[in-house]
Amino acid sequence: MGKGRILFSAQDIDPQRWQELLSQSREVVLEPNGPDDPSIEYAVVWRHAPGVLSKLPNLKIIFSIGAGVDHVLADPDIPHVPIVRAVADELTQLMTEYVVWRVLDHQRQGMLYREQQTRGIWNEPRQPAAGAVHVGIMGFGTLGCDAAKALLALGFKVNGWSRSPRPMAGVTAFHGADGLDAFLNATDILVSLLPLTPATRGIIDYDLLGKLNRGNPLGGAVLINAGRGQLQKDADIVRALDDGLIKEASLDVFETEPLPATSPLWSHPKVFITPHTAVISDPSYLVPPMLAQMDAFERGEKLLNMIDPKAGY
Amino acid sequence: MGKGRILFSAQDIDPQRWQELLSQSREVVLEPNGPDDPSIEYAVVWRHAPGVLSKLPNLKIIFSIGAGVDHVLADPDIPHVPIVRAVADELTQLMTEYVVWRVLDHQRQGMLYREQQTRGIWNEPRQPAAGAVHVGIMGFGTLGCDAAKALLALGFKVNGWSRSPRPMAGVTAFHGADGLDAFLNATDILVSLLPLTPATRGIIDYDLLGKLNRGNPLGGAVLINAGRGQLQKDADIVRALDDGLIKEASLDVFETEPLPATSPLWSHPKVFITPHTAVISDPSYLVPPMLAQMDAFERGEKLLNMIDPKAGY
Repeated sequence: MGKGRILFSAQDIDPQRWQELLSQSREVVLEPNGPDDPSIEYAVVWRHAPGVLSKLPNLKIIFSIGAGVDHVLADPDIPHVPIVRAVADELTQLMTEYVVWRVLDHQRQGMLYREQQTRGIWNEPRQPAAGAVHVGIMGFGTLGCDAAKALLALGFKVNGWSRSPRPMAGVTAFHGADGLDAFLNATDILVSLLPLTPATRGIIDYDLLGKLNRGNPLGGAVLINAGRGQLQKDADIVRALDDGLIKEASLDVFETEPLPATSPLWSHPKVFITPHTAVISDPSYLVPPMLAQMDAFERGEKLLNMIDPKAGY
Repeated sequence: MGKGRILFSAQDIDPQRWQELLSQSREVVLEPNGPDDPSIEYAVVWRHAPGVLSKLPNLKIIFSIGAGVDHVLADPDIPHVPIVRAVADELTQLMTEYVVWRVLDHQRQGMLYREQQTRGIWNEPRQPAAGAVHVGIMGFGTLGCDAAKALLALGFKVNGWSRSPRPMAGVTAFHGADGLDAFLNATDILVSLLPLTPATRGIIDYDLLGKLNRGNPLGGAVLINAGRGQLQKDADIVRALDDGLIKEASLDVFETEPLPATSPLWSHPKVFITPHTAVISDPSYLVPPMLAQMDAFERGEKLLNMIDPKAGY
């Protein structure tokens, strides 16, 4: 074909469908043909084999499978080429589904109703309307903005927190380290969609959870983490629940994945667990925009969704 | 004050807050002053005491607490005066919250995840996006239209079924007895918001549930009933679940309420129960529009949200 070849390097992902879809327009390999393979121009990666990217003389772009790129930057020897995050409308929509689903389940008291049902109790709890509940979204990029839009449409009050200012109509915006406490104090349900960077690692700890507004009409604060597991300290979440700093949590991500069988989170009555499935990086969603970007790049067009390696996202 | 008095007559509702709020602009009584009390011009009712309305010579309007008026029409001796349904933006919004919450919980497989969590299983199920799921709303009035709007915004496909044609942009509309089977065949998740009338009593039975599209990407059909309990046959729902006609159900209403302790629905693993709390008829939402209608009526203006006694809603 004369087109640059694609290296696909991913742990914990079956390469078959990726290969099938990517190879519709370019040759795909799972290993370079020797350490200095000049035929490889693109890499599609998810926790790639360490060192595999560093010696490819003609590598032009690294495509991350997933919106986060912490797994790419974890390799200290990655070459200085553009890194492109996975962005697809379908993935954004899946995350918005997850966020709205979890926010509604906490606001509408799903856990309380399930417990009542187990005990055969017919009882009407106090039910604050969406408009009385403040959802705070940490990480206000593509995913955060889309989730905010859906929550606003349902009548929730929405706060946003981001590193740099990100104003959005209808959203109370906070930013930077200086704005964090005010954001947390004004938030009843915290939704984490942050990227994992040196600045955000472990940010969701006992101290942070204690700053949420637990004197709210829901009767307590709530944590929803669908960002990265290493944003949080699992043990601090358990302690914050048991001490009443937060009332309930929905967790899609964990410090160690799969979540170890010994984790107290599994059986905690106030924790809802999904196994990192808020968004599933289906190749049928992601491959078409990746192939389109390769073609566009070769026509000399500007790349979309490039990350800033200094910021780490 | 010279204004007509209000009779408040309701079973199972504490009258105190209603009285407080209604009496801000008119005198309120819980019993007429004798059977022919000429001072009463308005009645605010929820399963009123039988016969209490029939002999009030100056009764002008009956206000129903709740969107459904089956509890008013159940009295064969109600006088021939306009009957006004409870409509308030806040109540519409509460129902939309409930519908979106339950639809998302079934689409995003909340029951499966909770079962996995109980058993400590880390497993990624197949996850159809909202756009692959057809939600069918039976009863397409104020509540149905608002829920449809919210579901469309999240990407769901929406079908609507109503007695008479109710076209809405983005919704595949069906109507009448002739359109029912086609509507059910095209529906993966059935949402019932129907009024209870002689034509709809018991409509959600084994036969109807068997017509839903169970060969869908969710792996089965789903029932959500937030209309009236007597629309459904509780025993048929259990049988339809056990025979695999439907996969899961969310029920807010039941043939007998409170749901008897002996009902197999309480402990059915595929049933989620709320105790008729999808919408709570809070007087702070409902009293202001009622008082406004009384004033408007006395100024000679047209009444809003009047029911058609022949249709029963």
